[in-house]
Amino acid sequence: MARIVQKFGGTSVADIDRIQAVAQRVKQSVDAGDEVAVVVSAMSGTTNQLVGWTREISPMHDAREYDVVVSAGEQITVGLMAMALQNIGVDARSWLGWQIPMVTDDVHGRARIDEVRADEIIRRFGLGQVAVMAGFQGIGSDNRITTLGRGGSDTSAVALAAAIGADRCDIFTDVDGIYTSDPRIVTRAQKLDKITYEEMLEMASLGAKVLQTRSVELAMNHRVRLQVLSSFIDAPGTLVVDEEEIVEQEIVSGIAHSGNEAKITLVRVPDNPGIAAAIFGPLAESSINVDMIVQNVSEDGKATDLTFTVPKDDLARTLEVLEGQKEDLGFERVEGDPDVVKISVVGVGMRSHAGVAMRMFQALADKGINIQVISTSEIKISVLVSDTYTELALRSLHTVYGLDAV
Amino acid sequence: MARIVQKFGGTSVADIDRIQAVAQRVKQSVDAGDEVAVVVSAMSGTTNQLVGWTREISPMHDAREYDVVVSAGEQITVGLMAMALQNIGVDARSWLGWQIPMVTDDVHGRARIDEVRADEIIRRFGLGQVAVMAGFQGIGSDNRITTLGRGGSDTSAVALAAAIGADRCDIFTDVDGIYTSDPRIVTRAQKLDKITYEEMLEMASLGAKVLQTRSVELAMNHRVRLQVLSSFIDAPGTLVVDEEEIVEQEIVSGIAHSGNEAKITLVRVPDNPGIAAAIFGPLAESSINVDMIVQNVSEDGKATDLTFTVPKDDLARTLEVLEGQKEDLGFERVEGDPDVVKISVVGVGMRSHAGVAMRMFQALADKGINIQVISTSEIKISVLVSDTYTELALRSLHTVYGLDAV
Repeated sequence: MARIVQKFGGTSVADIDRIQAVAQRVKQSVDAGDEVAVVVSAMSGTTNQLVGWTREISPMHDAREYDVVVSAGEQITVGLMAMALQNIGVDARSWLGWQIPMVTDDVHGRARIDEVRADEIIRRFGLGQVAVMAGFQGIGSDNRITTLGRGGSDTSAVALAAAIGADRCDIFTDVDGIYTSDPRIVTRAQKLDKITYEEMLEMASLGAKVLQTRSVELAMNHRVRLQVLSSFIDAPGTLVVDEEEIVEQEIVSGIAHSGNEAKITLVRVPDNPGIAAAIFGPLAESSINVDMIVQNVSEDGKATDLTFTVPKDDLARTLEVLEGQKEDLGFERVEGDPDVVKISVVGVGMRSHAGVAMRMFQALADKGINIQVISTSEIKISVLVSDTYTELALRSLHTVYGLDAV
Repeated sequence: MARIVQKFGGTSVADIDRIQAVAQRVKQSVDAGDEVAVVVSAMSGTTNQLVGWTREISPMHDAREYDVVVSAGEQITVGLMAMALQNIGVDARSWLGWQIPMVTDDVHGRARIDEVRADEIIRRFGLGQVAVMAGFQGIGSDNRITTLGRGGSDTSAVALAAAIGADRCDIFTDVDGIYTSDPRIVTRAQKLDKITYEEMLEMASLGAKVLQTRSVELAMNHRVRLQVLSSFIDAPGTLVVDEEEIVEQEIVSGIAHSGNEAKITLVRVPDNPGIAAAIFGPLAESSINVDMIVQNVSEDGKATDLTFTVPKDDLARTLEVLEGQKEDLGFERVEGDPDVVKISVVGVGMRSHAGVAMRMFQALADKGINIQVISTSEIKISVLVSDTYTELALRSLHTVYGLDAV
């Protein structure tokens, strides 16, 4: 017997047939003696429709009212899911964010969870009842509905798992696990049985969009064992766990890529103290997240080139902000390039193995791929290259690090 | 300055354009200095879709979960309406049933309102804020969402109007008022400026489906002045008020009709004491509402014929229930006839005027219309006739009682 949270996303509950299929899946666990809490998203399409309506009324709307509208999506699903479970003989009841309560701060539209008071859910486990909780929503201190931001249902599930001391939090999705690389590009990519939180965080933030970064952070902080698995195939997925749980750690676990990057180069920026703050301050104020930053060594001690990346969607706005500051900053010109991809080699084993980066640079050089920017963390090396090399770079690195399926 | 509740039904908020049109209408009242609370239904079609989903999962579902699902419809509308108002410069916030709270009993799916705690809404009137309340929903003692049953938004509006001591409760709908008869049939029907609660109750329960009977009862009990008016035409509608507010009362205010009736005749029922209870008991247990009842005088003192009406939708079930009791009840046979219509003459003036019924019977006889069943109340005379005479009967009576437009 285990205590499990099972989270199903929008495509898994897209219509009544799928909701009933999910109910059958939940019943399997209940029949096996598990205590189960189910967390569901809105039926796919619903959230988009609701968000569309709010935008139709006004692009600038009250976030509190936005939360009222969009949280209705999950409300519909929990009621239907509880009914579907009851209909096949599983005792179940729905829980909305304000009923639990899932207490959040008051930042409507992207609230953070403060506390989950799950006593009543635990008490009802004892009576054999399944809890069906609406993901994505909570309640603020003003007694109003809050939402956690797009994809927040993963975070809801992990927070609930932590609150009820769950043995595992299963995230059912449309892929069957975490792969060593994107299987659509790297045909020899393999499903990982286990991956560490840290690796998953790097993978998630680098474009392996299976789990929301926030939910992985929360799982890591509360040591909630996560499993990513398919809602459509009945097979084990990938476990996201503590490093200690993985006995034989590979040096490199996966090769991730992210096409959502654009490169900005400021040509001939005065090489003064405080220039970086002067550049990145205005960008931060415009809520533009700057990622990889490289400053070349200044040749003449007077001016240097500065390169960094921003989300592709923010490219135009970034150029606008910088052009607006051109006189103050004193650079010669600014260039933007959206045709780049970030390729990253991720693995906790890197910490104890030298030469991992060297192998990456050599492999790319062997294929004639020019590296534009490099950034590294303790368990990751990322390079920015022209996006025409995406496939070539991923496949080469996958082979070089011995990740290819036999 | 007045304090007004404005209720808009599903067709009035069917899409974003209409929601914005409603917001403009509310703004007019706000600009005129009124304190306004808006009550809205779900966007038309939404409730049907949500109910459809619950039925698809199971015809027999948990009413508590049903309420969770369907109440999402009004939740969506209040958020959008508050946004639309804010967007044109009107301070507004949405209120869900559980937020006010609109306290109900725990009869999910058709709850009754116990209490509306509207202090905060009144306080915010003082700050110039419009309250946008979700109709149809409340909260039970178990902290779960309840719904008031189909059409319950009218009742929500009247309950709120009573709680805040509103000067008037405007029910915006797709007709522009209450007519002396159905204008689709009686072309010379006229819009009434005023009608009493009692008359409206008789009209509503008799098929003039503009207002839910419950909401009129509630308005009468709390002396809430109701106005029925069009959401699409900017003109006064019909006021539903206390009898004292109407100075010159017509004897007859309107001629109503209801095609939702079926006639049942039990032929040769033993004429014993207690036979009526024996017949109507099983029907009540099956939740079948029996309306007009006529028992003929028994000729031989042994057996009599009993005629009554039931809702047309319940005809088959009624026959089934009665056939099942045939031996116990000892009647000879049972006959069902769906091809009937109930025509009613309604008016509080009847109380003080004799001969109103006689004129009705004479008028129908003059046209060769056979009266099958008669029932009367203090302010109403109803007859059941073959539904082929619907138009003829309505028009004749409309003329006879002097209601025709000049």
